[in-house]
Order: sequence, then structure tokens, then C-alpha cells
Amino acid sequence: MRMAAASEPPDECPSMSAPKVAPKVALLGAGRMGQVHGRNAVAHRRLELVSVVDPDAGLAGALAAELGCAVGTVDGVLADPQIAAVLVSTSTSTHLDLVLAALAAGKAVFCEKPLDLDLARLRAHAEQLERPAQPLYVAFNKRFDPHYGALKRKLDAGEIGALETLNLVSHDPAPPPPAFIPTSGGLFRDFSIHDFDMARWLLDEEPAELFAWASSLVDPAIAAAGDVDTARILLRCASGRLCMISNTRRSGYGYDQRAEAYGSKGAAFVANPRVAELQTWTEGGALAAPIWAGFQARHAPSYAAEIDHFAAVLAGEVLPVTGYGASVAALALAEAAARSVATGAPVKLADV
Amino acid sequence: MRMAAASEPPDECPSMSAPKVAPKVALLGAGRMGQVHGRNAVAHRRLELVSVVDPDAGLAGALAAELGCAVGTVDGVLADPQIAAVLVSTSTSTHLDLVLAALAAGKAVFCEKPLDLDLARLRAHAEQLERPAQPLYVAFNKRFDPHYGALKRKLDAGEIGALETLNLVSHDPAPPPPAFIPTSGGLFRDFSIHDFDMARWLLDEEPAELFAWASSLVDPAIAAAGDVDTARILLRCASGRLCMISNTRRSGYGYDQRAEAYGSKGAAFVANPRVAELQTWTEGGALAAPIWAGFQARHAPSYAAEIDHFAAVLAGEVLPVTGYGASVAALALAEAAARSVATGAPVKLADV
Amino acid sequence: MRMAAASEPPDECPSMSAPKVAPKVALLGAGRMGQVHGRNAVAHRRLELVSVVDPDAGLAGALAAELGCAVGTVDGVLADPQIAAVLVSTSTSTHLDLVLAALAAGKAVFCEKPLDLDLARLRAHAEQLERPAQPLYVAFNKRFDPHYGALKRKLDAGEIGALETLNLVSHDPAPPPPAFIPTSGGLFRDFSIHDFDMARWLLDEEPAELFAWASSLVDPAIAAAGDVDTARILLRCASGRLCMISNTRRSGYGYDQRAEAYGSKGAAFVANPRVAELQTWTEGGALAAPIWAGFQARHAPSYAAEIDHFAAVLAGEVLPVTGYGASVAALALAEAAARSVATGAPVKLADV
Amino acid sequence: MRMAAASEPPDECPSMSAPKVAPKVALLGAGRMGQVHGRNAVAHRRLELVSVVDPDAGLAGALAAELGCAVGTVDGVLADPQIAAVLVSTSTSTHLDLVLAALAAGKAVFCEKPLDLDLARLRAHAEQLERPAQPLYVAFNKRFDPHYGALKRKLDAGEIGALETLNLVSHDPAPPPPAFIPTSGGLFRDFSIHDFDMARWLLDEEPAELFAWASSLVDPAIAAAGDVDTARILLRCASGRLCMISNTRRSGYGYDQRAEAYGSKGAAFVANPRVAELQTWTEGGALAAPIWAGFQARHAPSYAAEIDHFAAVLAGEVLPVTGYGASVAALALAEAAARSVATGAPVKLADV
Repeated sequence: MRMAAASEPPDECPSMSAPKVAPKVALLGAGRMGQVHGRNAVAHRRLELVSVVDPDAGLAGALAAELGCAVGTVDGVLADPQIAAVLVSTSTSTHLDLVLAALAAGKAVFCEKPLDLDLARLRAHAEQLERPAQPLYVAFNKRFDPHYGALKRKLDAGEIGALETLNLVSHDPAPPPPAFIPTSGGLFRDFSIHDFDMARWLLDEEPAELFAWASSLVDPAIAAAGDVDTARILLRCASGRLCMISNTRRSGYGYDQRAEAYGSKGAAFVANPRVAELQTWTEGGALAAPIWAGFQARHAPSYAAEIDHFAAVLAGEVLPVTGYGASVAALALAEAAARSVATGAPVKLADV
Repeated sequence: MRMAAASEPPDECPSMSAPKVAPKVALLGAGRMGQVHGRNAVAHRRLELVSVVDPDAGLAGALAAELGCAVGTVDGVLADPQIAAVLVSTSTSTHLDLVLAALAAGKAVFCEKPLDLDLARLRAHAEQLERPAQPLYVAFNKRFDPHYGALKRKLDAGEIGALETLNLVSHDPAPPPPAFIPTSGGLFRDFSIHDFDMARWLLDEEPAELFAWASSLVDPAIAAAGDVDTARILLRCASGRLCMISNTRRSGYGYDQRAEAYGSKGAAFVANPRVAELQTWTEGGALAAPIWAGFQARHAPSYAAEIDHFAAVLAGEVLPVTGYGASVAALALAEAAARSVATGAPVKLADV
Repeated sequence: MRMAAASEPPDECPSMSAPKVAPKVALLGAGRMGQVHGRNAVAHRRLELVSVVDPDAGLAGALAAELGCAVGTVDGVLADPQIAAVLVSTSTSTHLDLVLAALAAGKAVFCEKPLDLDLARLRAHAEQLERPAQPLYVAFNKRFDPHYGALKRKLDAGEIGALETLNLVSHDPAPPPPAFIPTSGGLFRDFSIHDFDMARWLLDEEPAELFAWASSLVDPAIAAAGDVDTARILLRCASGRLCMISNTRRSGYGYDQRAEAYGSKGAAFVANPRVAELQTWTEGGALAAPIWAGFQARHAPSYAAEIDHFAAVLAGEVLPVTGYGASVAALALAEAAARSVATGAPVKLADV
Repeated sequence: MRMAAASEPPDECPSMSAPKVAPKVALLGAGRMGQVHGRNAVAHRRLELVSVVDPDAGLAGALAAELGCAVGTVDGVLADPQIAAVLVSTSTSTHLDLVLAALAAGKAVFCEKPLDLDLARLRAHAEQLERPAQPLYVAFNKRFDPHYGALKRKLDAGEIGALETLNLVSHDPAPPPPAFIPTSGGLFRDFSIHDFDMARWLLDEEPAELFAWASSLVDPAIAAAGDVDTARILLRCASGRLCMISNTRRSGYGYDQRAEAYGSKGAAFVANPRVAELQTWTEGGALAAPIWAGFQARHAPSYAAEIDHFAAVLAGEVLPVTGYGASVAALALAEAAARSVATGAPVKLADV
């Protein structure tokens, strides 16, 4: 039987190339984010996920079965010379110890943000973390979001002139279970930390001062747990440039992530993608489809992209875009925000 | 070393399940669409791509190397009892013979649309194709597009009342190479065929008549090759419901796919997704990011979804959503359009 | 008391000029459109509305009282040498006789479209109407709509290259009372006529052929009155350029007026203004405020602009943008549409 | 000659009513805003503009000629018992004296905002201004903006639940001439004052504290004149509700006025109207028409609406929506903002 050659017109056809030998990686933590990273790792042609570790044996076993790899232990993984890297997606309080142990064992590390919730403790390990023998990537996923990435390229290209001010919006759809609050580090360390990293990245200048007001408007249980749920945060750079961050634990309308960048020649805006490009018109108006309800669906592309970035790091092609430095700087801003709310006064970053 | 249990708040966490044993499939055709389907198949956990076939040995070899599978032959694939299914992405003129041979060999078939460009020839094989022993899925990918899918669900839910009229827009960004035209089947069989399938699907009623005007406005080489490049097509159903299709080979602004559905209680609109949700505001206005430049990027989700659909078909979970019936109906509309342009008169589908 | 000089920064301050002596005008017809034109005329500083005429004495009296002018008669107005112009907003069947009488009496004429519903009758008066002694302006108001005007300027400036195709949408919110249908001239003469004028204006080329399909989907009373309520109309020019017109008597979502112009270098789209630039975001999606419910609110700016145009015509500054020529051409297209629906075949404009 | 009765279908036809006798009003100030108010007053059927006053005889004469009224003097106007009301649109430093004199003369007063730039001085006249014998309307025009009005109605109707936070954006297109700065009262008293009034109106609760950071990023001449040009202002209410205000003297993309209201059940957004509902699509993206370049065009409807409101006030139908109370409250917020910038600390409104 004869089969004619494909004769379709050419399009944006990616070049084909044989895959490299994929480094073996282990996943520490089979919870919500561990599942996301595990699935992305197993689907990536340049990584070989070999092991899943979790203190909850049921979680670990189910995820290992789904992903077709073994259930392991932390010690076993760290002792295994075949394993080149670990993905740390455990609960935040364990991040730092696991990262230090993995680096000490000669593993490259992908660590879900933040490295730690305690600024002093984190700084105490600056020596091991700032220039680690193996690459340390701390996963601030929004740096890989295609929409924020497009904004960053606009700014870098000078398309709105010199950036002067920035307004960032991060609104969660609904508050977490109250039980989560006490171990979360609080609104600023757990939640606003993404915005602090975005602010640093987009401003391309370190904030010198911070002022924040925060309130408990959403859920009395959050207040009872000692946290706030609604905040407006101002950052000021030495240059006079200003940044505003708007946060709430409950929007009531979905997972809302936007940015407004104002420059000397114009402005650029990141809006929310929607679940479908569908409008319904009735006498009541034109209803656009909702924005994504949660971060997992909204950020699926950036989670996949950060695993791809880590694969490139392991291949020696690039350095991690964010590591100890970005972690400690974002955490310092979170610390400053908490201090500003506590004192009712602006806080100089030099004092944090 | 201890690792605390993951304690993040729950989100839209998909249930985990162990993968089934994946059926072996072979890919026939390593051209542009073959590469798309091959990559999607190899990334799908419920399919095992084992073989790539193409008369161009270089193409086949490169794709097989990339995807980590063997280079095969049509005869070898069809003779291999281990192979459960074939993906046919060869040039259109070979589709029908390959499909018939594969079905005769007991393989399930995924065939890139259209099954054939010749309506009479296709109908001559109705017996083998209408109720094949193994599943035959003809890949009209837009049925799996999330935006058109959201529209279909709106219509089915009655949210705009009874559907009365439909306007469909399919504009290509730039014309194909003139060399493609003579084997393409012409604008209606190659290009508008997607819209004919959309019209049938969304109207949920067979068009009874068709009228089309078409012009050569874009590229004299297309006219020289005997084809048109710009068309407006009207469909009329027995109920009086009307559908308009707008086609051009060159939009100048990207790959434009839209739909407008007008009902007794309102209307629903499918718009184009954009490469980023980014706007730039200057004195000249607010510039939204471009729509996708080509169908491969625009339709990446639907190409992946149709491979997923085929995996579910192979697992016996669902029947193919489109097969011989949808193929022959869409081709009849294309035939009617060509005849209407040739005669300058409306064409009854009963006469085609 | 001292009053400091105004020191605000300058803005887009229109130049101030003393008003000219305003010509006296009379309004014939105090119905819906007569009220619109009467209010605009009385508010215009370059017109002096002196008289309102209507066979319904109550209507005429109420409007005259509101506008602060006299109630008149047709004969009185035409005999009054002080009155320079008449605004004809009576029922369509009376337009032509009144226009002819007014022109014969030496009055300039503003006539609500269309001049007449009978093409042969209109053409029979070509001699008096084509080059009238006094200006004759036939009010196709959409030529003064700011949104369509912006589109026209884009096209004329070549910003989308050479115009190739055009899709026009005119959807009424709700059908008129059935009693209106018999005297309306039918969908094409009464309603589509605006789109025919738009098509001619935007294409800047006379359509050579027309094909239309129309259905009765909205209101059986319209069908019972011998008319259709839903249509798709195709126009073809000698150059091959194509235009599609989408019409319905009932949208269910407001007064919908849009245009899509496709050119060799891109496309331009006229969308609907909304009653407010307000969005409401909930879990159901983002709801934009409705479009205008009816033509009076939607077209308020263009109705005011056409009175302003007429004032400029009376001042001798410009010629009427549309008169007998535009009227007869649009009516011929309406006639062709009716004939196409009746015969089921395309109609050459040369035969109408 | 016979004229048939108007038979068009009914639409949203406003009821006709005879105009009342229009009170005589005088305009003080023929500058930029005086011209706006003068033109709106002369076009209003319930006001009779009889006199224009300005220390610049040329300005006064030109505007009086355009509007068809006399040139007057302050003393003459105040002494004229026929004149019921004055429109004060002079330079800000003269507002308070003129308002006091006009009230003392028994005139109703329409005063362009703000009543005065000096909080202590304004409060010193509370007795005369708080419950004046004749109505005193201070023109915060944005209360009559249709878009902000639609937002207010949404909030009042509880459509987004309980309002929790508010983000307001007011960005001017380009900085004023440096010469304007010294007499302007500075960014907060001259410019942000509109936002302070909006915040009070929309929050429906008095802000208890304010914090502001402001920079000189736009124009060194503004800094040289002792003012700032870019600010972010936070307001906090006793309830914990928060408001952020974003201000700049130069956006580079037009006159930008937006609002974001976040409530317990969703959010509502006021966006900018555009000069036309026209999009142009090219390979570079979809370009929407610009927003309005300046406040005069953007706010033309609200300027007309506030004159209409004043006419209703004069007719005894309504009380002024904003007077001394709104003026002093907005000025206190401006004072607090200036103090916060000066001290670098939050300011309690109770201390201002």
C-alpha cells in the first residue's frame, strides 16, 4: 500500500529533536501542590520521576500509582546516588530542613515557595543557600505566567516608557479553612509573598519602604486565629516609584490576578484569562464567562513552565531565575508588612 | 528526617487513579498534523505510541526519534496484532484507502478530517464506514474546542432560548502556498468544511439549502489554480433557521475563529482567545495582545482533547462523536457550496 | 468686589463665535421621530423652529407647547415666505408628496428616510428631486453615527488596506406592533434600508447583485401580515467584494448595531456602546451593562448631528450628504431583496 | 394637502410637558469651566442665562456674544432682584468671597468645586454655609457621571453584597502649566479632591484615617513649584473598610477615570468610555479607540447633568446633593493627605 508524502502547507512547526537522557528526580510531598508538580514532572520528557515521598502513606501510594513510580523515603532518596534532584512540595515548615539536607546530599533542588517563614532563620543559612553547590530553584510560579511574562517583556522593551507606578491585585476566591491559618505564616508571608516577588521583578528596583493597612472583613475565624484577610500595601522605592498591592482572602467572583503598570509613555494591564471566550447577551447585559475559580486551573501553564525551567536548570542550560535571594527579599517585605500593620507606621526595609 | 504531612487547604484536586494498560497505536503520517497528533499521543497516559510511518523516511525517522518509538511501514503496522489502532494524518488523498485497509485489518481508526474529498467515492463505501467493526473517529477538532464547547452547552441548556440564526467566521491568517491549492479540494472541501460541521452541530438540524458567493480577492495565484479565496455562504434549514459562514484565506490579523448564535431570548458569542491577557494603553488607544497566528497554537487544546477522546473510545467508554456520518454530511455541504458558486443559484442538499 | 481672572490651565476649548441669524423652519409630523427632530431643532442655535404641524391636533399642540412654537398647517407653512425649510417626519406614505410640495414652494427640505416606498414612483420624480432648486436632505442618520463615522474614516485612511468584505448587523430589540407591518413597506424597505445605505457608503462601490433569504421566526403576526422578520442578505460588487447583512426584528438583548470590515491588511469593527461602562463580577462571570434598548437612545447623537448638518446645509456651507440618489439606490436594494426572497434567486441590480 | 397621522411604533418616548418659567441666572467667570457651564445653562430650557461676568473683558464679551446675553459686573448681578441665582466658575481663590456675597444678596448659588482651598477659613464660615437661606450647590460633577452613578446604584442595591474595599483611579493625561501649580492648592486640594468626594460617596462612611505617599516623577517644574505629581493614598474607615486612590498628573494615554468596588458577593468596575466603539485588528493586536483626552469631553454629560440638577434645585424640587458639608469633608481629606506626605505618617481625620 502506497502512502503519499504529507503535503500540507507549513505552519509554526517546532523543530524536532531527540530527547536527552532524563535526570532522575524524586518528589517530596504528595499533597495538593505535590500532585501538580508530580504530574508535570512525569509528563516532561526531560525528567524521569522515580519516587514519591509523603508521611501520609495513603497519599504517597496513590500518587505513586497514578504516576507510575515508587514510594520512597526522605532518607532513601537522599542516599540514592542515581537521583539527581528533588522537588520539595511539603508543608512550608519543613521546606528549609529538607532543602538543606538535599543540598548537603548533592541534590539539585526545586522548592515550592517560600523557603521558610522565619526571616532570621532563613538568613542564618545564607551561606549554604546563596551559592549552593547544586542549583536551588525556589518556585515563584508567577514569573512563568504567560500574561505577567508578556507584561515584563513590554516593560523591558520600554513600550510604556519608564515605569513609574504599579498596582497589583491578588484576590483569592474564598478563604482557606481556619485550621490552615495558624501554620500559614499569616496573610503576608503566605499570600502577599507572590505580590512582593512580582513587585520586585516588575519594578526592577528594591522597595525601600512599606506601609500596610489590613483588616478582618471576610471571616471572623481568620481574625480569631490572629490573622487579617484584607489588605492594601504600599511600597516606595528610593527613586520615588510607588507600588500598591490589593489583597483579599475572598473575592466572591473567582481567583483574580491583575497588574497595572504605569509608565511615562502609557500603561500596560494584565487581565484575567477566562474559562471560555464566550459572551451571553440578554436584556441584562453581556455576560462574559467567569475567570478561573482557583489557582490550580489559572496557573496550570506556569506550574508546567516552572518544571520545564527546572529541567533546563538540570541540563545546565540556565541558572534558576529565583533562589535564596528572591526568597529572602520577598520574605523581608512580608515581615515589613506585618510590622507596619502592628505598629501603624511605615517600615524601612533597611530596618527589617 | 521527619516530614510533616501536607497541610495546604484543599482545592479543585482531581481524583487520582492508577492508569489502565495503554493500547498500542501507530501514527500514519509524520507531517504537520501527524507531528501534532504524535506528540499528543505520546504524552497521553492511556495510549502507547509504538510506531511512526511516513513515505518520507527523514520525516518519519526524526519524529520517531523525538517521540521515542519505532519507524514502521503501513503493511507492518496493519499486520501487527499488537497494534490496536492507527492515527491517520497523511495527505487527504490517501485517507480513505488507509482507513478502509486499517478497518479491514481490525484496527480502530482516528482519521484526520476529511475522510475523502470525493463525495460519490465516499458514499460508495458507506457500508464499510457507517457501522464499522472497529471504531472510526473522524477528527473534526473544533467539536473539542473549549470555547465552541461552552457555546454548545449554552445552546443545549436553552440559555438563549430557541436558536434562530448563526453567523460563523473562519478566517485564515495567510494563504497557503499556491502548490497546495490543486490537491486541497478547494476552499469549501478543505477549509469551510470545519464550518459546515460546526453549523450542523450547533444548529442541530440539517441544512436543507445552501447559497454561496465566492471571490478571488486575496491572491491571484489561488485564482490561477482554479480556486477562490473569499466566501460568504448561507445555509437554510427546513425550519427557516439561517446560518451565514464568512471565510477568507487571508485575514491579515491572525487566525480568526468566531461564532454568533442568535436565539429567541438573547445571543451567545464565541470570541478569539489571545496570546496574552495584556493591554497596552497609549494615546493611540488600548491595544490588546494579538489573537493566535495559526491554528496549531489556537487549537492545541482541542487537538489534545481529541486524542483524549480517542483514548476513551479505545477504552470502550464512549463512541466516536464524529465518524462517517458527519464526514459525508459536511462534504455534501462543501459540494453544494462549490455547485452554488458554479451555477450562481441556491442548491438543495437533497440534490447533492 | 474684585474677581480674579480665570487661571485654569487651557484644555480643548472650542473657539467662541457669535451665532448667525437662524433660518426659520417648520416641523411636519409630531410623532416619535418628529419629536426627536423638533427637540433637536429647537435646541440648535442656528435654527429657529417656528411651527409644528400634525393631523393629530393633540400631538401637534403638545409638541408645540413643549417647544415653545406655534401649531401650523401644511398649507400655511408652505405659503409662509418667512419659513426657509421644512422637516418632514410624517408617516412614510406622505413623504414624497410633502417633499415635492415643499420644494415647489421654494423650501429647503429635511426628510426622514425613506423618500418613498415605491421605487417606480420615486424614479418618476427624478427630475424634480435629483437637482432640486432648494437643498433636499434625506436623513439616513447612521451616516452621522460617531462609531460608524470612525469606521468610515479608518477605511478612507487605508488603515486596513483595501476593503474586501463587510458584515453588517442590525437587530431590533423587539418587533413592532403587527399593525405597523402592512404600511411599513416590509422588512427590507423599512428596516434593512439603513444597512443598504451603510453598505453603499462603506463599500464605496455599487452592489451589482443581491441574494437574500428571509424567514418568519419571531412573530407569527408578522408572517400573517405578509412580512418576514429575520434575514440574511448578501451583496456582491462587480469587483468581487462581498457584503453580508444580518437582520432580525427581535434580538431579545437590545438594539444591536455592528459592522465588521475586512481588508487586505486587517479588519475594523464597530461595536455597540453600552448604557454605562460598568461591569459586575460574580461567580457567574463578568456582566457588562446592557447595550441601549432602542434606537432613540442609541442614535441620539446622530439625530442631533443630522439636524446640525441640515443647519450647515441651510447656511450654504455644505451640500446634503444624502438626497435623492442615496434614497433611490437604497430603495433599489430593498426592492432587489424582496424580489430575491420571492424568487429564491439572486437579483442583478441592473434589472431592478 | 393631506398629511396622514404618524403611525410609527412607539418607543421610549419621553412625556411632553410645557416648560416652566425659567429663573434668571448670571455666570461669574468666563474661563474654561465658565464656558462649559454657560453653554449648558443657555441650552437648558428651565434656566435663563442673562449675564456673564469676568474681569477679562474680552473673555466676558466673547462668551456673552456667543450665548446671546449681556456682560455684567459682580455688583450689578448681586444688586439685580430679577436674578435668582449665580453660577460661580471663577478662579478658586475667589470662590468663597463670591459665594458669601451672593448668598448675602439672596441668590441661590452653583459653585464650581472647591468652595475654598483653606480648611480653617472654610470652617470659619460654617454658620453662613451649612444652612444657607438660599440653596448652595457645590459642583462635584462626578456624582452626576452616568458611569459612577451606575456603580453607586449597584452598591446601594446590594448587588455585590457589603462593600469592603474600593480602588479609585484618576489620572490626568498631561500636567498643567507650571504656572498653575502655585495657586492650585497642590495635587490633593486641586485634583485628588474629586476622589475624596467619590470615596466618601461610594463608601457611605467617613474615612477615619489617611496615609499617602507622593512623588515627583512627571515634571521637575512641578517639584520646583513645591508640589508632587504622583500619589497613592489609603483611607481607612472605623469599620476597617479600605480605599486606595491612585493619582498622577500625566498618564500618557488620556484622561483615565476608573473605580473598583469589592464587596462580599462580588465586585463592580467603572471603566473609561472611549471616543468610539471601534476596534482595529492587525497582526499587532486589537486596537480599541482611545479614551477621551481630557475632562471636558469625558465629563460633558455630568457637567450638563449638574446644571440640570441646579435647575431642579431652583425649582424647589430637590435639595443640592453636595454643599458645604461635602466640601469641607473632601477638603479635610486633602489636608490630611498633605499632612501625611509631610510627616510620613498616617493622619487621623479627627485631628484635621
